[in-house]
Amino acid sequence: MSDNPTVENVVILGLGLIGGSLARALRASGFGKHFIGYGHREPSLLRGVELGVIDAFTLDLDEAIAQADILVIATPTLVAADMLKQILPRLEGQSHQPIITDVASVKGSLRDAAVAVHGAMPPRLVLAHPIAGSERSGVAASDENLFVSHRVILTPVEGNDPAAVGIIRAMWQSTGAEVVDMEVAEHDAVLAATSHLPHVLAYTLVDALAQSDASEDIFRFAAGGFRDFTRIASSDPVMWRDISIANKKALIEAIAMFSERLDGLRHAIESEDAEGLLEIFSRAKGARDEFATILAARGQ
Amino acid sequence: MSDNPTVENVVILGLGLIGGSLARALRASGFGKHFIGYGHREPSLLRGVELGVIDAFTLDLDEAIAQADILVIATPTLVAADMLKQILPRLEGQSHQPIITDVASVKGSLRDAAVAVHGAMPPRLVLAHPIAGSERSGVAASDENLFVSHRVILTPVEGNDPAAVGIIRAMWQSTGAEVVDMEVAEHDAVLAATSHLPHVLAYTLVDALAQSDASEDIFRFAAGGFRDFTRIASSDPVMWRDISIANKKALIEAIAMFSERLDGLRHAIESEDAEGLLEIFSRAKGARDEFATILAARGQ
Repeated sequence: MSDNPTVENVVILGLGLIGGSLARALRASGFGKHFIGYGHREPSLLRGVELGVIDAFTLDLDEAIAQADILVIATPTLVAADMLKQILPRLEGQSHQPIITDVASVKGSLRDAAVAVHGAMPPRLVLAHPIAGSERSGVAASDENLFVSHRVILTPVEGNDPAAVGIIRAMWQSTGAEVVDMEVAEHDAVLAATSHLPHVLAYTLVDALAQSDASEDIFRFAAGGFRDFTRIASSDPVMWRDISIANKKALIEAIAMFSERLDGLRHAIESEDAEGLLEIFSRAKGARDEFATILAARGQ
Repeated sequence: MSDNPTVENVVILGLGLIGGSLARALRASGFGKHFIGYGHREPSLLRGVELGVIDAFTLDLDEAIAQADILVIATPTLVAADMLKQILPRLEGQSHQPIITDVASVKGSLRDAAVAVHGAMPPRLVLAHPIAGSERSGVAASDENLFVSHRVILTPVEGNDPAAVGIIRAMWQSTGAEVVDMEVAEHDAVLAATSHLPHVLAYTLVDALAQSDASEDIFRFAAGGFRDFTRIASSDPVMWRDISIANKKALIEAIAMFSERLDGLRHAIESEDAEGLLEIFSRAKGARDEFATILAARGQ
Protein backbone atom coordinates (compact mmCIF):
# COMPACT_ATOMS: atom_id res chain seq x y z
CA MET A 1 0.00 0.00 0.00
CA SER A 2 1.41 3.39 -0.93
CA ASP A 3 2.04 6.32 1.43
CA ASN A 4 -0.87 8.17 -0.14
CA PRO A 5 -3.53 5.51 -0.30
CA THR A 6 -6.77 6.09 -2.07
CA VAL A 7 -9.63 5.89 0.39
CA GLU A 8 -13.07 5.80 -1.16
CA ASN A 9 -15.59 5.56 1.62
CA VAL A 10 -15.28 6.96 5.13
CA VAL A 11 -18.12 5.98 7.43
CA ILE A 12 -18.66 8.09 10.53
CA LEU A 13 -20.45 6.36 13.41
CA GLY A 14 -21.93 9.12 15.54
CA LEU A 15 -22.15 12.38 13.63
CA GLY A 16 -21.50 15.01 16.30
CA LEU A 17 -18.97 17.80 16.62
CA ILE A 18 -15.89 15.57 16.27
CA GLY A 19 -17.20 13.16 13.63
CA GLY A 20 -18.71 15.99 11.60
CA SER A 21 -15.55 18.10 11.80
CA LEU A 22 -13.44 15.12 10.71
CA ALA A 23 -15.68 14.52 7.67
CA ARG A 24 -15.50 18.19 6.71
CA ALA A 25 -11.71 18.30 7.13
CA LEU A 26 -11.19 15.12 5.09
CA ARG A 27 -13.43 16.33 2.30
CA ALA A 28 -11.58 19.67 2.23
CA SER A 29 -8.19 17.97 2.07
CA GLY A 30 -9.24 15.44 -0.58
CA PHE A 31 -8.70 12.47 1.74
CA GLY A 32 -11.64 10.18 1.05
CA LYS A 33 -14.28 10.49 -1.64
CA HIS A 34 -17.58 9.62 0.00
CA PHE A 35 -18.63 10.37 3.54
CA ILE A 36 -21.38 8.28 5.02
CA GLY A 37 -23.02 8.74 8.40
CA TYR A 38 -24.37 6.02 10.66
CA GLY A 39 -26.38 6.45 13.83
CA HIS A 40 -29.73 6.05 15.54
CA ARG A 41 -30.89 9.65 15.28
CA GLU A 42 -32.12 10.26 11.75
CA PRO A 43 -32.68 14.05 12.20
CA SER A 44 -29.03 14.72 12.95
CA LEU A 45 -27.95 12.54 10.00
CA LEU A 46 -30.39 14.40 7.71
CA ARG A 47 -28.95 17.66 9.01
CA GLY A 48 -25.46 16.34 8.15
CA VAL A 49 -26.53 15.73 4.55
CA GLU A 50 -28.19 19.16 4.33
CA LEU A 51 -24.99 20.80 5.60
CA GLY A 52 -22.87 18.86 3.11
CA VAL A 53 -20.95 17.20 5.92
CA ILE A 54 -21.89 13.70 4.69
CA ASP A 55 -23.09 12.50 1.29
CA ALA A 56 -25.42 9.82 2.59
CA PHE A 57 -26.36 7.93 5.73
CA THR A 58 -27.67 4.61 6.91
CA LEU A 59 -29.42 3.47 10.07
CA ASP A 60 -28.22 -0.10 9.48
CA LEU A 61 -24.91 -1.15 11.02
CA ASP A 62 -24.27 -4.02 8.59
CA GLU A 63 -24.71 -1.66 5.67
CA ALA A 64 -22.42 0.89 7.31
CA ILE A 65 -19.70 -1.74 7.74
CA ALA A 66 -20.12 -3.13 4.22
CA GLN A 67 -19.63 0.34 2.68
CA ALA A 68 -16.63 1.38 4.75
CA ASP A 69 -12.98 1.56 3.79
CA ILE A 70 -12.48 3.40 7.08
CA LEU A 71 -14.97 3.18 9.92
CA VAL A 72 -14.60 6.03 12.42
CA ILE A 73 -16.30 5.41 15.77
CA ALA A 74 -16.99 9.00 16.80
CA THR A 75 -19.30 8.30 19.74
CA PRO A 76 -18.69 9.05 23.44
CA THR A 77 -16.20 6.80 25.25
CA LEU A 78 -18.47 4.14 26.76
CA VAL A 79 -20.65 3.94 23.65
CA ALA A 80 -17.50 3.40 21.57
CA ALA A 81 -16.74 0.24 23.57
CA ASP A 82 -20.28 -1.00 22.92
CA MET A 83 -19.89 -0.24 19.21
CA LEU A 84 -16.70 -2.31 19.08
CA LYS A 85 -18.54 -5.19 20.73
CA GLN A 86 -21.20 -4.97 18.02
CA ILE A 87 -18.83 -4.50 15.08
CA LEU A 88 -15.99 -6.94 15.70
CA PRO A 89 -18.09 -10.15 15.77
CA ARG A 90 -19.66 -9.17 12.42
CA LEU A 91 -16.21 -9.05 10.81
CA GLU A 92 -15.09 -12.54 11.92
CA GLY A 93 -14.28 -14.62 8.83
CA GLN A 94 -15.33 -11.86 6.40
CA SER A 95 -13.17 -10.94 3.43
CA HIS A 96 -14.07 -7.24 3.72
CA GLN A 97 -12.08 -5.83 6.64
CA PRO A 98 -12.43 -2.05 6.95
CA ILE A 99 -9.92 -0.11 9.01
CA ILE A 100 -11.59 0.81 12.28
CA THR A 101 -10.57 3.81 14.33
CA ASP A 102 -12.07 6.01 17.04
CA VAL A 103 -11.80 9.41 18.73
CA ALA A 104 -12.42 8.52 22.39
CA SER A 105 -10.69 10.16 25.37
CA VAL A 106 -9.60 6.84 26.89
CA LYS A 107 -7.72 4.11 25.02
CA GLY A 108 -7.20 1.25 27.51
CA SER A 109 -10.92 0.62 27.92
CA LEU A 110 -11.38 0.29 24.14
CA ARG A 111 -8.38 -2.01 23.80
CA ASP A 112 -9.79 -4.14 26.62
CA ALA A 113 -13.23 -4.22 24.97
CA ALA A 114 -11.69 -5.34 21.66
CA VAL A 115 -9.56 -8.01 23.32
CA ALA A 116 -12.58 -9.27 25.26
CA VAL A 117 -14.54 -9.81 22.02
CA HIS A 118 -11.81 -10.75 19.59
CA GLY A 119 -9.21 -12.41 21.85
CA ALA A 120 -6.56 -9.89 20.77
CA MET A 121 -6.37 -6.42 19.20
CA PRO A 122 -7.63 -6.80 15.61
CA PRO A 123 -4.79 -5.81 13.21
CA ARG A 124 -6.90 -3.17 11.48
CA LEU A 125 -8.25 -1.52 14.64
CA VAL A 126 -6.14 1.62 15.16
CA LEU A 127 -7.05 3.61 18.26
CA ALA A 128 -6.67 7.39 18.12
CA HIS A 129 -7.54 10.47 20.19
CA PRO A 130 -7.77 13.96 18.71
CA ILE A 131 -7.21 16.50 21.51
CA ALA A 132 -9.63 19.08 20.26
CA GLY A 133 -13.10 20.19 21.16
CA SER A 134 -15.40 23.11 21.45
CA GLU A 135 -17.94 24.40 23.92
CA ARG A 136 -20.51 23.73 21.22
CA SER A 137 -21.62 20.25 20.22
CA GLY A 138 -23.52 18.53 17.44
CA VAL A 139 -22.99 18.30 13.71
CA ALA A 140 -24.15 21.90 13.17
CA ALA A 141 -21.12 23.09 15.13
CA SER A 142 -18.68 21.00 13.06
CA ASP A 143 -15.71 22.86 11.62
CA GLU A 144 -13.20 21.69 9.02
CA ASN A 145 -10.42 23.53 10.88
CA LEU A 146 -11.14 22.06 14.32
CA PHE A 147 -8.01 19.91 14.30
CA VAL A 148 -5.54 22.34 12.69
CA SER A 149 -2.42 22.56 14.91
CA HIS A 150 -4.04 20.32 17.51
CA ARG A 151 -2.48 17.09 18.64
CA VAL A 152 -3.84 13.68 17.68
CA ILE A 153 -2.47 10.75 19.65
CA LEU A 154 -2.30 7.33 17.97
CA THR A 155 -1.81 4.31 20.23
CA PRO A 156 -0.75 1.55 17.81
CA VAL A 157 -0.05 -1.87 19.33
CA GLU A 158 2.29 -4.68 18.33
CA GLY A 159 -0.32 -6.68 16.42
CA ASN A 160 -1.48 -3.71 14.33
CA ASP A 161 -1.27 -3.84 10.51
CA PRO A 162 1.38 -1.16 9.74
CA ALA A 163 -0.51 -0.20 6.57
CA ALA A 164 -3.67 0.47 8.55
CA VAL A 165 -1.74 2.56 11.08
CA GLY A 166 -0.18 4.48 8.16
CA ILE A 167 -3.58 5.26 6.66
CA ILE A 168 -5.02 6.54 9.94
CA ARG A 169 -1.87 8.62 10.46
CA ALA A 170 -2.24 10.07 6.94
CA MET A 171 -5.93 10.68 7.57
CA TRP A 172 -5.25 12.81 10.64
CA GLN A 173 -2.28 14.57 9.08
CA SER A 174 -4.54 15.64 6.23
CA THR A 175 -6.72 17.53 8.75
CA GLY A 176 -3.79 19.75 9.74
CA ALA A 177 -3.24 18.01 13.08
CA GLU A 178 0.12 17.05 14.58
CA VAL A 179 0.05 13.26 14.94
CA VAL A 180 2.00 11.65 17.78
CA ASP A 181 2.31 7.99 18.83
CA MET A 182 2.03 6.82 22.43
CA GLU A 183 1.62 3.60 24.37
CA VAL A 184 -1.98 3.00 25.48
CA ALA A 185 -1.08 3.22 29.18
CA GLU A 186 0.99 6.35 28.67
CA HIS A 187 -1.88 8.02 26.81
CA ASP A 188 -4.33 7.23 29.57
CA ALA A 189 -1.93 8.45 32.29
CA VAL A 190 -1.12 11.71 30.50
CA LEU A 191 -4.79 12.42 29.82
CA ALA A 192 -5.71 11.54 33.40
CA ALA A 193 -3.18 14.12 34.63
CA THR A 194 -3.90 16.96 32.22
CA SER A 195 -7.60 16.60 31.61
CA HIS A 196 -9.48 14.04 33.66
CA LEU A 197 -8.01 15.03 37.05
CA PRO A 198 -8.59 18.78 36.50
CA HIS A 199 -12.21 18.06 35.59
CA VAL A 200 -12.65 15.96 38.73
CA LEU A 201 -11.08 18.69 40.89
CA ALA A 202 -13.26 21.42 39.38
CA TYR A 203 -16.46 19.37 39.75
CA THR A 204 -15.52 18.49 43.33
CA LEU A 205 -14.84 22.08 44.32
CA VAL A 206 -17.97 23.55 42.76
CA ASP A 207 -20.19 20.82 44.20
CA ALA A 208 -18.66 21.18 47.66
CA LEU A 209 -19.19 24.94 47.65
CA ALA A 210 -22.70 24.67 46.22
CA GLN A 211 -23.62 22.23 49.01
CA SER A 212 -22.15 24.34 51.81
CA ASP A 213 -24.23 26.53 54.13
CA ALA A 214 -22.57 29.67 52.80
CA SER A 215 -23.11 28.81 49.12
CA GLU A 216 -25.03 31.99 48.39
CA ASP A 217 -22.25 34.22 49.73
CA ILE A 218 -19.63 32.05 48.11
CA PHE A 219 -20.93 32.44 44.58
CA ARG A 220 -21.73 36.09 45.23
CA PHE A 221 -18.15 36.94 46.15
CA ALA A 222 -16.31 34.66 43.76
CA ALA A 223 -14.41 36.55 41.09
CA GLY A 224 -12.56 36.10 37.82
CA GLY A 225 -9.98 33.59 39.05
CA PHE A 226 -12.75 31.34 40.29
CA ARG A 227 -14.59 31.64 36.98
CA ASP A 228 -11.58 30.42 34.99
CA PHE A 229 -10.72 27.72 37.52
CA THR A 230 -14.22 26.26 37.46
CA ARG A 231 -15.05 26.71 33.76
CA ILE A 232 -14.54 22.97 33.07
CA ALA A 233 -17.16 22.13 35.71
CA SER A 234 -19.70 23.28 33.10
CA SER A 235 -18.72 20.31 30.90
CA ASP A 236 -21.16 17.55 30.00
CA PRO A 237 -21.73 15.41 33.14
CA VAL A 238 -22.58 12.26 31.15
CA MET A 239 -19.39 12.46 29.12
CA TRP A 240 -17.31 12.92 32.28
CA ARG A 241 -19.08 10.16 34.16
CA ASP A 242 -18.16 7.86 31.27
CA ILE A 243 -14.55 9.03 31.05
CA SER A 244 -14.10 8.70 34.84
CA ILE A 245 -15.23 5.09 34.70
CA ALA A 246 -13.43 4.22 31.45
CA ASN A 247 -10.12 5.63 32.73
CA LYS A 248 -10.68 4.51 36.32
CA LYS A 249 -7.23 3.05 36.96
CA ALA A 250 -5.15 6.00 35.72
CA LEU A 251 -7.56 8.55 37.19
CA ILE A 252 -7.49 6.93 40.65
CA GLU A 253 -3.68 7.03 40.52
CA ALA A 254 -3.74 10.69 39.50
CA ILE A 255 -6.16 11.55 42.32
CA ALA A 256 -3.96 9.68 44.83
CA MET A 257 -0.86 11.52 43.62
CA PHE A 258 -2.69 14.85 43.87
CA SER A 259 -4.08 14.10 47.33
CA GLU A 260 -0.63 13.28 48.63
CA ARG A 261 0.70 16.59 47.33
CA LEU A 262 -2.23 18.48 48.79
CA ASP A 263 -1.58 16.85 52.17
CA GLY A 264 2.01 18.06 51.92
CA LEU A 265 0.89 21.59 51.19
CA ARG A 266 -1.64 21.50 54.01
CA HIS A 267 1.16 20.48 56.36
CA ALA A 268 3.36 23.34 55.08
CA ILE A 269 0.52 25.81 55.78
CA GLU A 270 -0.18 24.32 59.21
CA SER A 271 3.45 24.64 60.22
CA GLU A 272 3.72 28.09 58.55
CA ASP A 273 6.64 26.83 56.47
CA ALA A 274 7.06 30.09 54.54
CA GLU A 275 10.14 28.87 52.67
CA GLY A 276 8.50 25.58 51.63
CA LEU A 277 5.35 27.34 50.44
CA LEU A 278 7.30 29.89 48.43
CA GLU A 279 9.28 27.05 46.82
CA ILE A 280 6.14 25.15 45.77
CA PHE A 281 4.28 28.24 44.53
CA SER A 282 7.35 29.55 42.66
CA ARG A 283 8.03 26.21 40.95
CA ALA A 284 4.37 25.99 39.93
CA LYS A 285 4.34 29.54 38.60
CA GLY A 286 7.50 28.82 36.59
CA ALA A 287 5.97 25.68 35.05
CA ARG A 288 2.64 27.42 34.34
CA ASP A 289 4.34 30.41 32.71
CA GLU A 290 6.39 28.03 30.53
CA PHE A 291 3.21 26.17 29.56
CA ALA A 292 1.54 29.46 28.62
CA THR A 293 4.52 30.22 26.39
CA ILE A 294 4.20 26.83 24.67
CA LEU A 295 0.48 27.39 24.06
CA ALA A 296 1.09 30.91 22.76
CA ALA A 297 3.75 29.63 20.34
CA ARG A 298 1.23 27.06 19.11
CA GLY A 299 -1.19 29.90 18.45
CA GLN A 300 -3.86 28.54 20.79
CA MET B 1 -20.79 63.85 61.24
CA SER B 2 -22.80 64.14 58.03
CA ASP B 3 -23.44 61.39 55.51
CA ASN B 4 -21.23 63.17 53.01
CA PRO B 5 -18.25 64.04 55.15
CA THR B 6 -15.51 66.26 53.87
CA VAL B 7 -12.26 64.39 53.78
CA GLU B 8 -9.19 66.51 53.11
CA ASN B 9 -6.19 64.22 53.10
CA VAL B 10 -6.06 60.59 52.07
CA VAL B 11 -2.71 58.95 52.71
CA ILE B 12 -1.95 55.75 50.78
CA LEU B 13 0.61 53.46 52.38
CA GLY B 14 2.01 51.29 49.56
CA LEU B 15 1.32 52.84 46.17
CA GLY B 16 0.74 49.81 43.93
CA LEU B 17 -2.15 48.75 41.69
CA ILE B 18 -4.81 48.83 44.42
CA GLY B 19 -3.62 51.90 46.32
CA GLY B 20 -3.04 53.82 43.10
CA SER B 21 -6.41 52.84 41.64
CA LEU B 22 -8.15 53.88 44.86
CA ALA B 23 -6.45 57.31 44.80
CA ARG B 24 -7.43 57.79 41.14
CA ALA B 25 -11.04 56.72 41.78
CA LEU B 26 -11.41 58.99 44.82
CA ARG B 27 -9.95 61.98 42.99
CA ALA B 28 -12.30 61.35 40.06
CA SER B 29 -15.36 61.12 42.35
CA GLY B 30 -14.40 64.17 44.40
CA PHE B 31 -14.00 62.15 47.61
CA GLY B 32 -10.88 63.60 49.28
CA LYS B 33 -8.89 66.64 48.23
CA HIS B 34 -5.24 65.71 48.61
CA PHE B 35 -3.68 62.35 48.00
CA ILE B 36 -0.39 61.61 49.65
CA GLY B 37 1.76 58.53 49.18
CA TYR B 38 3.93 56.84 51.76
CA GLY B 39 6.42 54.03 51.22
CA HIS B 40 10.04 53.01 51.12
CA ARG B 41 10.53 53.06 47.36
CA GLU B 42 10.95 56.67 46.26
CA PRO B 43 10.95 55.88 42.46
CA SER B 44 7.44 54.44 42.55
CA LEU B 45 6.20 57.38 44.65
CA LEU B 46 7.82 59.83 42.20
CA ARG B 47 6.13 57.94 39.37
CA GLY B 48 2.82 58.32 41.24
CA VAL B 49 3.26 62.10 41.35
CA GLU B 50 4.26 62.22 37.66
CA LEU B 51 1.14 60.25 36.75
CA GLY B 52 -1.05 62.54 38.85
CA VAL B 53 -2.13 59.64 41.06
CA ILE B 54 -0.86 61.39 44.20
CA ASP B 55 -0.15 65.05 44.88
CA ALA B 56 2.81 64.49 47.19
CA PHE B 57 4.62 61.81 49.13
CA THR B 58 6.66 61.24 52.22
CA LEU B 59 9.15 58.57 53.28
CA ASP B 60 8.47 59.36 56.95
CA LEU B 61 5.73 57.39 58.71
CA ASP B 62 5.13 60.00 61.44
CA GLU B 63 4.62 62.66 58.81
CA ALA B 64 2.27 60.37 56.88
CA ILE B 65 0.16 59.79 59.99
CA ALA B 66 0.13 63.45 60.98
CA GLN B 67 -1.20 64.50 57.56
CA ALA B 68 -3.89 61.83 57.26
CA ASP B 69 -7.64 62.11 57.68
CA ILE B 70 -7.81 58.60 56.23
CA LEU B 71 -4.82 56.28 56.22
CA VAL B 72 -5.19 53.43 53.71
CA ILE B 73 -2.81 50.53 54.26
CA ALA B 74 -2.55 49.22 50.69
CA THR B 75 0.37 46.85 51.18
CA PRO B 76 0.37 43.04 50.84
CA THR B 77 -1.33 41.09 53.64
CA LEU B 78 1.60 40.29 55.95
CA VAL B 79 3.16 43.74 55.51
CA ALA B 80 -0.20 45.27 56.45
CA ALA B 81 -0.03 43.55 59.86
CA ASP B 82 3.48 44.94 60.36
CA MET B 83 2.28 48.42 59.39
CA LEU B 84 -0.49 48.22 61.99
CA LYS B 85 2.08 47.27 64.61
CA GLN B 86 4.09 50.35 63.68
CA ILE B 87 1.17 52.76 63.43
CA LEU B 88 -1.07 51.93 66.40
CA PRO B 89 1.53 52.60 69.17
CA ARG B 90 2.25 56.00 67.62
CA LEU B 91 -1.41 56.99 68.02
CA GLU B 92 -1.71 56.11 71.74
CA GLY B 93 -2.73 59.22 73.68
CA GLN B 94 -2.62 61.46 70.60
CA SER B 95 -5.43 63.92 69.86
CA HIS B 96 -5.12 63.35 66.07
CA GLN B 97 -6.74 60.00 65.30
CA PRO B 98 -6.97 59.34 61.57
CA ILE B 99 -9.35 56.68 60.29
CA ILE B 100 -7.25 53.65 59.35
CA THR B 101 -8.34 51.12 56.76
CA ASP B 102 -6.75 48.48 54.55
CA VAL B 103 -7.27 46.41 51.39
CA ALA B 104 -5.81 43.03 52.44
CA SER B 105 -7.19 39.64 51.41
CA VAL B 106 -7.40 38.33 54.98
CA LYS B 107 -9.10 40.13 57.85
CA GLY B 108 -8.65 37.93 60.93
CA SER B 109 -4.87 38.25 60.91
CA LEU B 110 -5.10 42.07 60.86
CA ARG B 111 -7.68 42.14 63.61
CA ASP B 112 -5.42 39.88 65.68
CA ALA B 113 -2.40 42.10 64.98
CA ALA B 114 -4.35 45.16 66.10
CA VAL B 115 -5.65 43.49 69.23
CA ALA B 116 -2.14 42.26 70.07
CA VAL B 117 -0.78 45.82 69.98
CA HIS B 118 -3.73 47.84 71.21
CA GLY B 119 -5.53 45.35 73.49
CA ALA B 120 -8.72 45.68 71.42
CA MET B 121 -9.78 46.80 67.95
CA PRO B 122 -9.18 50.58 67.80
CA PRO B 123 -12.53 52.33 67.19
CA ARG B 124 -11.26 54.09 64.06
CA LEU B 125 -9.63 51.03 62.44
CA VAL B 126 -12.11 49.81 59.77
CA LEU B 127 -10.97 46.70 57.92
CA ALA B 128 -11.98 46.32 54.26
CA HIS B 129 -11.29 44.12 51.27
CA PRO B 130 -11.93 45.22 47.69
CA ILE B 131 -12.37 42.08 45.53
CA ALA B 132 -10.68 43.42 42.45
CA GLY B 133 -7.34 43.02 40.79
CA SER B 134 -5.54 42.79 37.52
CA GLU B 135 -2.83 40.66 36.00
CA ARG B 136 -0.73 43.83 35.98
CA SER B 137 0.72 45.40 39.09
CA GLY B 138 2.32 48.65 40.20
CA VAL B 139 1.12 52.25 40.22
CA ALA B 140 1.56 52.56 36.43
CA ALA B 141 -1.22 49.96 35.99
CA SER B 142 -3.61 51.81 38.32
CA ASP B 143 -7.07 52.52 36.93
CA GLU B 144 -9.80 54.77 38.32
CA ASN B 145 -12.45 52.25 37.19
CA LEU B 146 -10.84 49.17 38.77
CA PHE B 147 -13.53 48.90 41.46
CA VAL B 148 -16.62 49.77 39.39
CA SER B 149 -19.26 47.03 39.92
CA HIS B 150 -16.83 45.01 42.04
CA ARG B 151 -17.57 44.02 45.59
CA VAL B 152 -15.85 45.57 48.60
CA ILE B 153 -16.32 43.73 51.88
CA LEU B 154 -16.23 45.74 55.13
CA THR B 155 -15.77 43.80 58.36
CA PRO B 156 -16.79 46.29 61.07
CA VAL B 157 -16.62 45.07 64.68
CA GLU B 158 -18.61 45.98 67.76
CA GLY B 159 -16.11 48.51 69.11
CA ASN B 160 -15.88 50.42 65.81
CA ASP B 161 -16.79 54.12 65.68
CA PRO B 162 -19.93 54.14 63.47
CA ALA B 163 -18.87 57.44 61.92
CA ALA B 164 -15.54 55.97 60.86
CA VAL B 165 -17.30 52.94 59.36
CA GLY B 166 -19.68 55.30 57.53
CA ILE B 167 -16.81 57.28 56.02
CA ILE B 168 -15.01 54.16 54.77
CA ARG B 169 -18.29 52.88 53.34
CA ALA B 170 -18.86 56.22 51.57
CA MET B 171 -15.26 56.16 50.32
CA TRP B 172 -15.69 52.80 48.62
CA GLN B 173 -19.17 53.63 47.32
CA SER B 174 -17.70 56.68 45.62
CA THR B 175 -15.41 54.36 43.56
CA GLY B 176 -18.44 52.64 42.02
CA ALA B 177 -18.04 49.49 44.11
CA GLU B 178 -20.86 47.57 45.79
CA VAL B 179 -20.09 47.64 49.52
CA VAL B 180 -21.15 44.71 51.70
CA ASP B 181 -20.64 44.03 55.42
CA MET B 182 -19.49 40.70 56.80
CA GLU B 183 -18.20 39.24 60.03
CA VAL B 184 -14.41 38.85 60.06
CA ALA B 185 -14.59 35.04 60.31
CA GLU B 186 -17.22 34.82 57.58
CA HIS B 187 -15.09 36.93 55.25
CA ASP B 188 -12.05 34.75 55.80
CA ALA B 189 -14.06 31.54 55.27
CA VAL B 190 -15.74 32.77 52.07
CA LEU B 191 -12.45 33.99 50.64
CA ALA B 192 -10.73 30.76 51.63
CA ALA B 193 -13.36 28.81 49.69
CA THR B 194 -13.62 30.96 46.58
CA SER B 195 -10.10 32.24 46.17
CA HIS B 196 -7.45 30.86 48.50
CA LEU B 197 -8.40 27.18 48.09
CA PRO B 198 -8.58 27.37 44.25
CA HIS B 199 -5.13 28.97 44.20
CA VAL B 200 -3.76 26.22 46.45
CA LEU B 201 -5.32 23.52 44.23
CA ALA B 202 -3.97 25.05 41.03
CA TYR B 203 -0.47 25.49 42.46
CA THR B 204 -0.53 21.91 43.80
CA LEU B 205 -1.62 20.41 40.50
CA VAL B 206 0.87 22.30 38.34
CA ASP B 207 3.74 21.59 40.72
CA ALA B 208 2.86 17.90 40.94
CA LEU B 209 2.73 17.56 37.15
CA ALA B 210 5.90 19.59 36.62
CA GLN B 211 7.73 17.32 39.07
CA SER B 212 6.47 14.07 37.53
CA ASP B 213 8.55 11.90 35.19
CA ALA B 214 6.15 12.55 32.31
CA SER B 215 6.13 16.34 32.75
CA GLU B 216 7.31 17.00 29.20
CA ASP B 217 4.48 14.97 27.68
CA ILE B 218 2.02 16.36 30.15
CA PHE B 219 2.54 19.98 29.22
CA ARG B 220 2.81 19.06 25.54
CA PHE B 221 -0.63 17.47 25.47
CA ALA B 222 -2.46 19.76 27.84
CA ALA B 223 -5.12 21.84 26.13
CA GLY B 224 -7.42 24.78 26.67
CA GLY B 225 -9.28 23.41 29.70
CA PHE B 226 -5.99 22.92 31.50
CA ARG B 227 -4.89 26.44 30.58
CA ASP B 228 -7.96 28.01 32.17
CA PHE B 229 -7.86 25.71 35.19
CA THR B 230 -4.23 26.53 35.96
CA ARG B 231 -4.20 30.23 35.07
CA ILE B 232 -4.19 31.27 38.75
CA ALA B 233 -1.01 29.22 39.30
CA SER B 234 0.75 32.07 37.47
CA SER B 235 -0.12 34.41 40.37
CA ASP B 236 2.55 36.04 42.55
CA PRO B 237 4.06 33.31 44.81
CA VAL B 238 5.05 35.77 47.56
CA MET B 239 1.53 37.18 47.78
CA TRP B 240 0.04 33.69 47.99
CA ARG B 241 2.58 32.46 50.52
CA ASP B 242 1.54 35.40 52.70
CA ILE B 243 -2.19 34.87 52.23
CA SER B 244 -1.85 31.13 52.96
CA ILE B 245 -0.17 31.87 56.26
CA ALA B 246 -2.38 34.84 57.18
CA ASN B 247 -5.58 32.86 56.54
CA LYS B 248 -4.16 29.58 57.82
CA LYS B 249 -7.11 28.52 59.94
CA ALA B 250 -9.88 29.03 57.34
CA LEU B 251 -7.70 27.71 54.53
CA ILE B 252 -6.82 24.51 56.41
CA GLU B 253 -10.55 23.98 57.02
CA ALA B 254 -11.32 24.54 53.34
CA ILE B 255 -8.60 22.09 52.28
CA ALA B 256 -9.92 19.49 54.73
CA MET B 257 -13.47 19.92 53.42
CA PHE B 258 -12.24 19.60 49.83
CA SER B 259 -10.08 16.54 50.59
CA GLU B 260 -13.04 14.79 52.17
CA ARG B 261 -15.15 15.44 49.06
CA LEU B 262 -12.35 14.29 46.78
CA ASP B 263 -12.05 11.07 48.78
CA GLY B 264 -15.78 10.55 48.25
CA LEU B 265 -15.43 11.04 44.52
CA ARG B 266 -12.45 8.72 44.37
CA HIS B 267 -14.54 6.09 46.10
CA ALA B 268 -17.39 6.61 43.60
CA ILE B 269 -14.95 6.13 40.70
CA GLU B 270 -13.37 3.06 42.30
CA SER B 271 -16.73 1.41 42.76
CA GLU B 272 -17.93 2.59 39.32
CA ASP B 273 -20.91 4.28 40.94
CA ALA B 274 -22.24 5.73 37.67
CA GLU B 275 -25.35 7.19 39.29
CA GLY B 276 -23.40 8.85 42.11
CA LEU B 277 -20.88 10.35 39.69
CA LEU B 278 -23.59 11.70 37.42
CA GLU B 279 -25.32 13.26 40.42
CA ILE B 280 -22.16 15.04 41.60
CA PHE B 281 -21.14 16.22 38.12
CA SER B 282 -24.68 17.37 37.26
CA ARG B 283 -25.07 19.32 40.52
CA ALA B 284 -21.70 20.95 39.95
CA LYS B 285 -22.55 21.86 36.35
CA GLY B 286 -25.84 23.37 37.50
CA ALA B 287 -24.12 25.50 40.14
CA ARG B 288 -21.33 26.55 37.76
CA ASP B 289 -23.79 27.52 35.03
CA GLU B 290 -25.76 29.58 37.55
CA PHE B 291 -22.57 31.28 38.69
CA ALA B 292 -21.69 32.11 35.07
CA THR B 293 -25.12 33.71 34.71
CA ILE B 294 -24.56 35.82 37.83
CA LEU B 295 -21.17 36.99 36.53
CA ALA B 296 -22.60 37.76 33.09
CA ALA B 297 -25.42 39.81 34.66
CA ARG B 298 -22.79 41.74 36.59
CA GLY B 299 -21.06 42.49 33.29
CA GLN B 300 -17.80 40.80 34.26
